[in-house]
Amino acid sequence: MTKPVTTPPKGSRDFLPRDVRQREYVTGIIRDVFQSHGFAPLETPAFERLDALLGKYGEEGDQLLFKILLRGEPLVQGIRDASNLLSQPGGLVQGRSGQTAPAAEPLLADLGLRYDLTVPLARVYAAYQGKLPAIWKRYQIQPVWRADTPGRGRFREFYQCDVDIVGAASNVVEAEVAGAAALCLKRLGFNDFKLRLNHRGLLRAIMEHAGIAVGLEGAAIVAVDKLDKIGPEGVAKELASRGVPPEAAARLLAIMANARSLQDVQRALAGHAAGERAIAEIERVLDFASVTAAKDHLTFDVSLARGLGYYTGCIFEIAVSDLAGSLGGGGRYDGLIGMFLGKEVPACGFSLGLERILVVMEERKMYPAELERLHAVVAPVDEAGLKSALLLCQTLRAAGLAIDLLPKPTAPGKLRKHADEQGIGAAIWHEAGQGERASLWLKRDGSTQTDLTCEQLVELLHGAAPANLE
Amino acid sequence: MTKPVTTPPKGSRDFLPRDVRQREYVTGIIRDVFQSHGFAPLETPAFERLDALLGKYGEEGDQLLFKILLRGEPLVQGIRDASNLLSQPGGLVQGRSGQTAPAAEPLLADLGLRYDLTVPLARVYAAYQGKLPAIWKRYQIQPVWRADTPGRGRFREFYQCDVDIVGAASNVVEAEVAGAAALCLKRLGFNDFKLRLNHRGLLRAIMEHAGIAVGLEGAAIVAVDKLDKIGPEGVAKELASRGVPPEAAARLLAIMANARSLQDVQRALAGHAAGERAIAEIERVLDFASVTAAKDHLTFDVSLARGLGYYTGCIFEIAVSDLAGSLGGGGRYDGLIGMFLGKEVPACGFSLGLERILVVMEERKMYPAELERLHAVVAPVDEAGLKSALLLCQTLRAAGLAIDLLPKPTAPGKLRKHADEQGIGAAIWHEAGQGERASLWLKRDGSTQTDLTCEQLVELLHGAAPANLE
Repeated sequence: MTKPVTTPPKGSRDFLPRDVRQREYVTGIIRDVFQSHGFAPLETPAFERLDALLGKYGEEGDQLLFKILLRGEPLVQGIRDASNLLSQPGGLVQGRSGQTAPAAEPLLADLGLRYDLTVPLARVYAAYQGKLPAIWKRYQIQPVWRADTPGRGRFREFYQCDVDIVGAASNVVEAEVAGAAALCLKRLGFNDFKLRLNHRGLLRAIMEHAGIAVGLEGAAIVAVDKLDKIGPEGVAKELASRGVPPEAAARLLAIMANARSLQDVQRALAGHAAGERAIAEIERVLDFASVTAAKDHLTFDVSLARGLGYYTGCIFEIAVSDLAGSLGGGGRYDGLIGMFLGKEVPACGFSLGLERILVVMEERKMYPAELERLHAVVAPVDEAGLKSALLLCQTLRAAGLAIDLLPKPTAPGKLRKHADEQGIGAAIWHEAGQGERASLWLKRDGSTQTDLTCEQLVELLHGAAPANLE
Repeated sequence: MTKPVTTPPKGSRDFLPRDVRQREYVTGIIRDVFQSHGFAPLETPAFERLDALLGKYGEEGDQLLFKILLRGEPLVQGIRDASNLLSQPGGLVQGRSGQTAPAAEPLLADLGLRYDLTVPLARVYAAYQGKLPAIWKRYQIQPVWRADTPGRGRFREFYQCDVDIVGAASNVVEAEVAGAAALCLKRLGFNDFKLRLNHRGLLRAIMEHAGIAVGLEGAAIVAVDKLDKIGPEGVAKELASRGVPPEAAARLLAIMANARSLQDVQRALAGHAAGERAIAEIERVLDFASVTAAKDHLTFDVSLARGLGYYTGCIFEIAVSDLAGSLGGGGRYDGLIGMFLGKEVPACGFSLGLERILVVMEERKMYPAELERLHAVVAPVDEAGLKSALLLCQTLRAAGLAIDLLPKPTAPGKLRKHADEQGIGAAIWHEAGQGERASLWLKRDGSTQTDLTCEQLVELLHGAAPANLE
């Protein structure tokens, strides 16, 4: 027998106790902040109907969906149909790493794993209209799955952490989601983050003003997004390669490169109605956000693009200097949530990049020293002492303490070593012939006290407990 | 355009805020109990390698696994291989509802969704030998997926809630897991549950004593398991139909039907070495458990079988009178955890039937009345009041209160109605021209107070808060 592979599947991770505790520490703080802002929790199934997912994330997204194989008789038919398709024109597609059969996939699968938390939100919003409040504030922290090539900090199974307000058009909503996201980061110990703000309508207005055709807007935005990285010449080159005429490109760069403040943009767009509306919205959001945790972090940045895709109004992005990419972002997207209803529904949200936040917190050592949940470990010194050791555990647990029982005879010295190695703050044992009284070793000062009653143990353990346990 | 389906996929569920809060209330209590007993959390990926899952749950289990479709070039080859297989003898199998192709499935899929929490536990135990303590106490609360026919209380996505101790042979471990499970139920408000105890070795000894061939033991156990339901005659009939000779069946029934106490069985098996060892283990477990929360609930029951499958020692099952089936169960299974290591590893665990517990708690109305997380809802009376309403929210939130902001102008009467309907205990608004002072309506007595400062609001809201918020 060859030794079986025991690592988790490619791009996925096992979370051992310390990992789970770190993740729960972070999500616990985020949940608290969201709840304190009136957001209510939602959880949706790991899989959705495949046809509800296909086409929602672009062609690349369709390929990255994990699809679930049909079962029973439908699978037999699916195999026959897929096999026929392979021999038809267009059935096979030449990809980078060989021939693929994207059109065959929906013939063999009926479900897909959750790819983000926005399509499920839209589906749930459509399904429970009568049961949900007219303005619905929800948060959702659940894993999503993408069949991406794994890399540093990029996984096939990872958590998303979304907060959205559906059904409200007021710009106070932008301030609420940005303020909540900023407060999460502050509560986690981040003080140096930047929250950039821009507006999709403003970008559109600038494009129009520069004379860039509507069809080229997306491509132009992707190029302009790199202004910081590749400079005006680099952007000009990229704009040209994407078919933007040189004059339009020059006008665009003139606005973008010189627009350091909202006033600069306002001057450049004076008289452009849609542009002025977008600027007024940005001003309102900045004003509202000035009374939230976003206050000292939020700045207007005309070069922020955020992929553009489905956003319709303000857009946000959070970054820290020691991480390329963002710790999260969001914005207003009034066209998406109504996808299952066939109508426009105002919506604004923020997605915190949980996995990236965890990476930075690990690197910066931002986790509290004490995430261990135990007050003490108890062990019997011999086989005969097992029951009284168990009884002692039960008494201490009943007093609100978290106590581990080592279920085998263990000499006191070995027990102390075990506690020390496992990061447990105290070890307790009955000396032989000591009756009901016990001995207590405390890790923090290496002291051992003997002949203690249960009441004394409870008092000493509560006194010695790390902050996270009291 | 046809109206898209917005219900969750067959056998899966959306959890709206009230559902999530109920589930979190229950899992929160269970986590606390497990942590207080020294169990540490584990989380594993939603999918495992398909070959790590196939063959672990029997033929039926293989069929119930949700399998994930191959991607890219391997899928093209898979379709060709699967199509070839269909035309080969044995490639197609006649099932109840048509032709199926079980052998084709592993050709088209590389991953399978988690089917239980025990195979992942065994894999993780093998993968992280050096990082885990020699005796490892872990709990895991995560969803699993089975492509079963959905029914009342039976879902395709449901949570399992397992606690296991790996690496310890002492029977004190059985008492620890049973005691922790019993304490979970007690803390949730169950007082009437029965915890039945039996031993797989004892069942084996009884079979041997009755003269039932080893190969028929499993079938005999399944029949005997129905003693309560179909009576001795029914069981005798079923034993005959399963090929158990009448004399052996009679001897078996004589022991089972008359064994009301452990002493009865002890007398019947006097001199049977393996039987006496099993009885001694049961006695030890009963003795240890007498100092745990299992105390008044645990009774020996010779007819408890628990599928038998992988158990090697004591077995447990929890039941309440108003639910057919169990609220959970477990036992010792020394042969399973070492599956990836190729050696025997002692293990003992308990699985709480989370979904069934939730069903019974709902039916018995055992949830606390207050699971709502909000202290109050604030709304502006007009557009101009939006910013001061937001500021008021921020001040109250900073004082540790959970405050929702209704992001649109709302008349006080309508705001009170909204709070009432949404189950929020208080509503707050600025009267026009009232400056920074605000009005507070309390749901509990319908009173309205005006001209309150922020400090007064904080005090009144903390005073009026439901128990779950303080």
